Amino acid sequence: MDSVGRLAVAGVGLIGGSFALALRKAGVVDHVVGIGRDPANLQRAVERGVIDEIVSVHEAARSADIFLLATPVANFPALFSNMTPVLKPGCIVTDVGSTKRDVVEAAQRGLGAHFSRFVPAHPIAGAETSGVAAARADLFEHKQVVLTPTVDTDPEALERVRALWIACGARTTALDARDHDAIFSAVSHLPHVLAFALVEMLGRRPNAAELFSFCGSGFRDFTRIAASSPEMWRDIALANRDLLARDIDDFAAALATLKDALNANDAAALERLFTAAQASRSKLSQQC
Amino acid sequence: MDSVGRLAVAGVGLIGGSFALALRKAGVVDHVVGIGRDPANLQRAVERGVIDEIVSVHEAARSADIFLLATPVANFPALFSNMTPVLKPGCIVTDVGSTKRDVVEAAQRGLGAHFSRFVPAHPIAGAETSGVAAARADLFEHKQVVLTPTVDTDPEALERVRALWIACGARTTALDARDHDAIFSAVSHLPHVLAFALVEMLGRRPNAAELFSFCGSGFRDFTRIAASSPEMWRDIALANRDLLARDIDDFAAALATLKDALNANDAAALERLFTAAQASRSKLSQQC
Repeated sequence: MDSVGRLAVAGVGLIGGSFALALRKAGVVDHVVGIGRDPANLQRAVERGVIDEIVSVHEAARSADIFLLATPVANFPALFSNMTPVLKPGCIVTDVGSTKRDVVEAAQRGLGAHFSRFVPAHPIAGAETSGVAAARADLFEHKQVVLTPTVDTDPEALERVRALWIACGARTTALDARDHDAIFSAVSHLPHVLAFALVEMLGRRPNAAELFSFCGSGFRDFTRIAASSPEMWRDIALANRDLLARDIDDFAAALATLKDALNANDAAALERLFTAAQASRSKLSQQC
Repeated sequence: MDSVGRLAVAGVGLIGGSFALALRKAGVVDHVVGIGRDPANLQRAVERGVIDEIVSVHEAARSADIFLLATPVANFPALFSNMTPVLKPGCIVTDVGSTKRDVVEAAQRGLGAHFSRFVPAHPIAGAETSGVAAARADLFEHKQVVLTPTVDTDPEALERVRALWIACGARTTALDARDHDAIFSAVSHLPHVLAFALVEMLGRRPNAAELFSFCGSGFRDFTRIAASSPEMWRDIALANRDLLARDIDDFAAALATLKDALNANDAAALERLFTAAQASRSKLSQQC
């Protein structure tokens, strides 16, 4: 692909930093500018060669060809309203937020006439690490990126962003924003709140330290996502709360059924339930 | 340590097979006999050099110096009553069951006068793989093994079993059987039933295949334990059902609190909850 020219990254952390590194490695960006609230993190980003310079939102907006929003989603409205008055004509704005209905609405409100060149995106490459120190050029290799264009999205802008993710080594899928949010409520947001709830519950017990000292690899893997950023997950949970609350109810009902079988000493019912889960989970191993 | 002479392993799967391989590697067993219900698995165990010969429970009981029970716990009562009439005097019987109150009770009932030489044990080295093909000499290296002796347990037998696990590269801890079951209900059995319940619930949805196609590494790790043996976990859940049901209630209450915060759009409460979980989980990373 042709070089995209100037890339601006707001939020030079794991995801934003890795996007810049991957595009640099692919040789498709000439110049990368970084925007952020943590000067020390931005300085490290310059030292690591992730970005070429630290700029303001205004400076970035005036000259960027691609503007990536990789901050917490809660900051998007402020970023949109800061960039819009000075945004370079033709600049493509895109993001990496984990929820998409709220991001599309914020972009619609904040970007005005530029909204058609906004391409909502969500790379499925979360991790519990954060900050530019964790960024890697290969983070998105063989990973999935979901794009959620609207009827207003400029096809050329969409294709451009798609090509950038392909250059990062990812594969892309397009979904409606609501379908995206429903799917990720089930396979990402719900597991996160379950892991948070379990570790929080055990952590409140008087013998928490003893309990944790006996954890095995199963507990470690199951609770790994409970080490994720509380602020980020607060925002994701709230942005998607209608769908997530419904999924929590579904899960609570499934758990109640399981507990009824346990209390009734119903070995056959428990085995049926576990067997169904095992069969689904085994198919999963082949898929991803 | 001195060689233990003849080792009998009932259930030559991942755990039983790895125990035999580890002791062979440490040079502390002369001869290993295997007992099991699956002739093909036992044949593979001979071919892999995990066991020297395939025998009956009676044959094993007559000559074994150490008799390891590594079958599903549900088979222990039958094994105990088969071995007891012919058990070689001085033979130490031990197990690797994931629950300990029920195993101790079954041994008390089934082993009669031999009960003092029964050493209940639980190596914390679960895996979703099974069968002798998955057995490895290093499975227990740096892993924890919990021993739950009773007041009747012969100290010499206890020390012998402890030394065997040390020879496997593990470290050992002693706990009361009830304390063991309470701890593992919280850090192992509860996470397993949560993972089973989540995957079973999602697997019932009409769009299950689509949902699973979007899973990321978080979902994969969170649900890894849902690929565990349904039969084994049915037995564990039932053996520990009083404690597990209490833990399910505690979890359901924590989840309900989280959902209330979500429905109330209470960002501060959600963040507090997630932050508490993250802090506990981060300590865990340093521990195990």
